[in-house]
Amino acid sequence: MNQISILSPATVANVVCGFDCLGFALSAPCDEMTVRLITEKNVRIVNLDDFNLPTKPEKNVAGAALLSMLQAVDGNFGFEVEITKHIKPGSGIGSSAASAAGAVIAANELLNERFSRLELVEFAMDGEKIASGDRHADNVAPCVFGGFTLVRSVNPLDIIALDFPPMFVTIIHPQIEIKTSDARKMLPAEVPLKDAIRQWSNVGALVFGLQKGDYKLISRALEDFIVESVRKSLIPKFDEIKRESLKAGALGGGISGSGPSIFMLSENSETARKIENVMQSIYEPAQTDFNIYVSEISTEGVKVRK
Amino acid sequence: MNQISILSPATVANVVCGFDCLGFALSAPCDEMTVRLITEKNVRIVNLDDFNLPTKPEKNVAGAALLSMLQAVDGNFGFEVEITKHIKPGSGIGSSAASAAGAVIAANELLNERFSRLELVEFAMDGEKIASGDRHADNVAPCVFGGFTLVRSVNPLDIIALDFPPMFVTIIHPQIEIKTSDARKMLPAEVPLKDAIRQWSNVGALVFGLQKGDYKLISRALEDFIVESVRKSLIPKFDEIKRESLKAGALGGGISGSGPSIFMLSENSETARKIENVMQSIYEPAQTDFNIYVSEISTEGVKVRK
Repeated sequence: MNQISILSPATVANVVCGFDCLGFALSAPCDEMTVRLITEKNVRIVNLDDFNLPTKPEKNVAGAALLSMLQAVDGNFGFEVEITKHIKPGSGIGSSAASAAGAVIAANELLNERFSRLELVEFAMDGEKIASGDRHADNVAPCVFGGFTLVRSVNPLDIIALDFPPMFVTIIHPQIEIKTSDARKMLPAEVPLKDAIRQWSNVGALVFGLQKGDYKLISRALEDFIVESVRKSLIPKFDEIKRESLKAGALGGGISGSGPSIFMLSENSETARKIENVMQSIYEPAQTDFNIYVSEISTEGVKVRK
Repeated sequence: MNQISILSPATVANVVCGFDCLGFALSAPCDEMTVRLITEKNVRIVNLDDFNLPTKPEKNVAGAALLSMLQAVDGNFGFEVEITKHIKPGSGIGSSAASAAGAVIAANELLNERFSRLELVEFAMDGEKIASGDRHADNVAPCVFGGFTLVRSVNPLDIIALDFPPMFVTIIHPQIEIKTSDARKMLPAEVPLKDAIRQWSNVGALVFGLQKGDYKLISRALEDFIVESVRKSLIPKFDEIKRESLKAGALGGGISGSGPSIFMLSENSETARKIENVMQSIYEPAQTDFNIYVSEISTEGVKVRK
């Protein structure tokens, strides 16, 4: 095999109380990528979409991840990558992670699975660094492992694939730009200890609730006392979307990644569809364009196309 | 039945990363208490030990908890409580919680279990307030529920009884006094966000590790970036005890409650006994008297004596 095609999914990071550690994978939208072995020790990027992303591999998220992988192998070969992105860069649903993780997983298949999933996350984080300026694993981890993941530690890298019950997510992506670096600047350097305690009590409860499939506990634990209040001002109608989604039966939700997307979790697809309507009815009268996605939380991450 | 005797166990709160939310119950030491119904709507305290604790019910931890319970019942009766404390007040292993929880659980048995466990925790918290100045549930929760508990929220009260694998604890109690209120004053009002993130990532991982019985993950997650560093100066030889206990095979550990006791968790009783020796050999040359306890983490909390 010297060529492979994959689908790399969108992911939600910063899951409410689990800021900077909890994330999950969606079934859709996905980026399409084809990776093939080439005889030159380098990476070639071919963009098949209209996003005008860099083609220099060291400036491209997928390229940087693959260069990092190539550094770890001893061999006179490289990769050509064709990318059709469907996850819009800057949407807050893991567009760069999809590129980085998709590329290294595809390449690893071509190398007969030489690397472990943890190693693949390490390579992909070198790609993420191009997009956001730091090596974070929140989106890459669910993209590689699938499902709901907890990044316990980045250095050394320690990732836990959590158990979780069937859950559906509704995501609205307002077509406005929030740069991850700007959203990062809004974060306080310090937080009140009492708020931090509430946050980690909720993270513990959320992990337990996911494990047990206890939707009521999951819902109670989906509280954020630290980040949402400072960042939500960037997102039009955040409070209204959240309030009305909860009224419509959402378990909870918040800002996806560093925004501008807002995600809401539901116990079943009917509720997730109902929340889609709620979000639509709130955004349609506004002057902001938007996309809405409804997806199950997927136990799979990147999928090989047969 | 108008009289009942119970054993109320010591508990460890502030379990490393789980400051102010995670706690567990020991098998021993326990306080002994006998509670009997009396025909007057009041509480009488009879102390059978040498600790010179208050006998006025509103000044006594067990008394205040029972008065709180009596306020919630409509009836012309009260309780007499005989208390023999074996858990030294101020030891940091839940002495006041044992008094408060033991009293209300015994009384509830005499009332044919009129109240839920959550209600009993609420009453017992009114007792805790006498000892530490605030209504906290970290020790009372494992005393009432047994095992390993997570207090997700105090208001409204939300307690989770976690699953956990067999675990043993070695506790050294140096005979020095640390007032909970003084230890509280040492806490920073604010903490760096990056440390808080590491803390809640560890809480999530610890809950998952306990659930799965994954001792290695439990061990990795037993890190505290917030409280230990500021409080350990109060406890002689803390760093040495911790370092040598880890060398001897401890999973991890830290300050029990607000100190001065130090606890170390182990996978089996042999390791816990080995750590007892390690602790002894460190403290014996020092000028500080001490007690050491070795116990399994008990699935039971307060036990009725047959």
